[in-house]
Amino acid sequence: MAPKSNLDLVTECDNFPYHSQDPEKFKALWNDYYHFYLEGCEACLGYMTPAVAEKFPLTQHWRLDELNRRLIFQPRDENAAPVTNFDKRNDILAEYLQHVREQRIFGVLSGWRDERYPIYGPNRELLLSMERSATPLFGVVTYGVHMTGYVETDEGMKIWAPRRALTKQTYPGMMDNTVAGGLSTGEKPFECLVRECEEEASLPEDLVRTAQACGTLTYFHVRDSRAGGETGLCQPECQYIYDLKMPPDAIPKPGDDEAIDFQLLTVEEVQRAMAEGRFKPNCAHLLLEFFVRHGILTAANEPDYIEIVTRLHRKLEFPTA
Amino acid sequence: MAPKSNLDLVTECDNFPYHSQDPEKFKALWNDYYHFYLEGCEACLGYMTPAVAEKFPLTQHWRLDELNRRLIFQPRDENAAPVTNFDKRNDILAEYLQHVREQRIFGVLSGWRDERYPIYGPNRELLLSMERSATPLFGVVTYGVHMTGYVETDEGMKIWAPRRALTKQTYPGMMDNTVAGGLSTGEKPFECLVRECEEEASLPEDLVRTAQACGTLTYFHVRDSRAGGETGLCQPECQYIYDLKMPPDAIPKPGDDEAIDFQLLTVEEVQRAMAEGRFKPNCAHLLLEFFVRHGILTAANEPDYIEIVTRLHRKLEFPTA
Repeated sequence: MAPKSNLDLVTECDNFPYHSQDPEKFKALWNDYYHFYLEGCEACLGYMTPAVAEKFPLTQHWRLDELNRRLIFQPRDENAAPVTNFDKRNDILAEYLQHVREQRIFGVLSGWRDERYPIYGPNRELLLSMERSATPLFGVVTYGVHMTGYVETDEGMKIWAPRRALTKQTYPGMMDNTVAGGLSTGEKPFECLVRECEEEASLPEDLVRTAQACGTLTYFHVRDSRAGGETGLCQPECQYIYDLKMPPDAIPKPGDDEAIDFQLLTVEEVQRAMAEGRFKPNCAHLLLEFFVRHGILTAANEPDYIEIVTRLHRKLEFPTA
Repeated sequence: MAPKSNLDLVTECDNFPYHSQDPEKFKALWNDYYHFYLEGCEACLGYMTPAVAEKFPLTQHWRLDELNRRLIFQPRDENAAPVTNFDKRNDILAEYLQHVREQRIFGVLSGWRDERYPIYGPNRELLLSMERSATPLFGVVTYGVHMTGYVETDEGMKIWAPRRALTKQTYPGMMDNTVAGGLSTGEKPFECLVRECEEEASLPEDLVRTAQACGTLTYFHVRDSRAGGETGLCQPECQYIYDLKMPPDAIPKPGDDEAIDFQLLTVEEVQRAMAEGRFKPNCAHLLLEFFVRHGILTAANEPDYIEIVTRLHRKLEFPTA
């Protein structure tokens, strides 16, 4: 297989079409997807494939507007009155999704996590809290932290990269970023990072608290078979990015069953593994951002520099945190 | 005047509407502008206000397609045959613009620079080379370099910021980035930086060559009166970003008539000047990117963090280098 270019890697992760690049293609896809709404909120919260939207069992809490291609969550109490309370709304959603899970309608729900992800409205207000494994069905924006742990050595910069366990539901066996994790409802990015660094890499808290925030990585991914479950699901994501310069004697070790091991690789070794498609797509995306920021990828050595930098920071069309 | 928030500063620089945020507003504006094309190239190269497009004197080299709202440059030789040679095309454009300048039709051409800027096609090929002062009339993407020179001191990080000369055509007297300049046709970003650092700040080449490339800043600016000349002109820009960590004894000095002086300011002093609107808009934009990358602005202290980071890296709808 021909090695992947950096732009190929970007396009594997950020693979939803851009309106600015191809308005017709964008519009065709946009018109095909169902749009997920919460009653009372004017913003579209996510895109759903027709195959998914049309399979959701309709109850009093849901309305499928086929004309406008909208799936609307309209939580109702026992008197059929709208429920506007945040916790009650989430309870209704949780109970409903549990019911859908038991009916085995969707493959991705077999990876049930018992963890809730936040969904925000146009004024950054928390609108909903949704079981993590269900988020790609609704195509809502999810949040995470990604940290690159690196060491300055006599041979130049080296990067700590784990291999994902073969038992992982998503992207088993692929290479990953030093530490990454999803942000649950109510969790702050930096605290999430400290927790994940302890759980996944056994890194001490005092070291992790020296990590530097460096921005966000945003992309709009459409899932293929490597993600497991249904394909074509929309996964717009926002990753809070951190760099951790590590002393040579800080050795990450798998602290849970997420990783097989950690390897300390040179930049060239990381780039080769990326070109061979061995990194999980959004991790390759993050590493490109790291390389841009550290002057490893530059206008002088990367012909697609401008295109790559902008696509590492996509403006999502949904409300965000 | 109320202090400007960081999102206010972003919106001052990146102030063309987004399709994803407001499709109707975008479409209305998009339909109002004329679109600049080169005959034989399918990509739109820039947006022009109707006031500008309709004032350009039409010769055999130009066609105004009012139905599709396009202004098309169609260079012709003495036999009325299409000119496809790059240099001949540019000569025709240069002669034409010189003629327009002499007729005093457009205010911005009174700031004639005798410097040519590159315009790229969809395959990153060089399509045209255009007099710098004319680029905002056509709304084409222009390129530059922006460098932040900073010093690590006992009182924390400090940043070198010049004040623009009161005689500058654009944004006189406002605060600026340590060194910034436009990229002429054929010039490489890093070599442009070395040249500008010498010209504008008298910084020695060996120091400047330690500067680190850190990505690009892209935004779509619509000019107001502070830029001089016509207002409402489109100015999509791509700045190649560099950081230069400077030793305390390297003191920038104005080397030409661009700056009055340089001040070494704390991060807080820079932030205050930004909030007071004292920085040139795209320089405030660049400083926000610097603050994000250096962990000064974070998700914990900036409510508009995600929005800001994406808008520092706008995907332009025109071909780029």
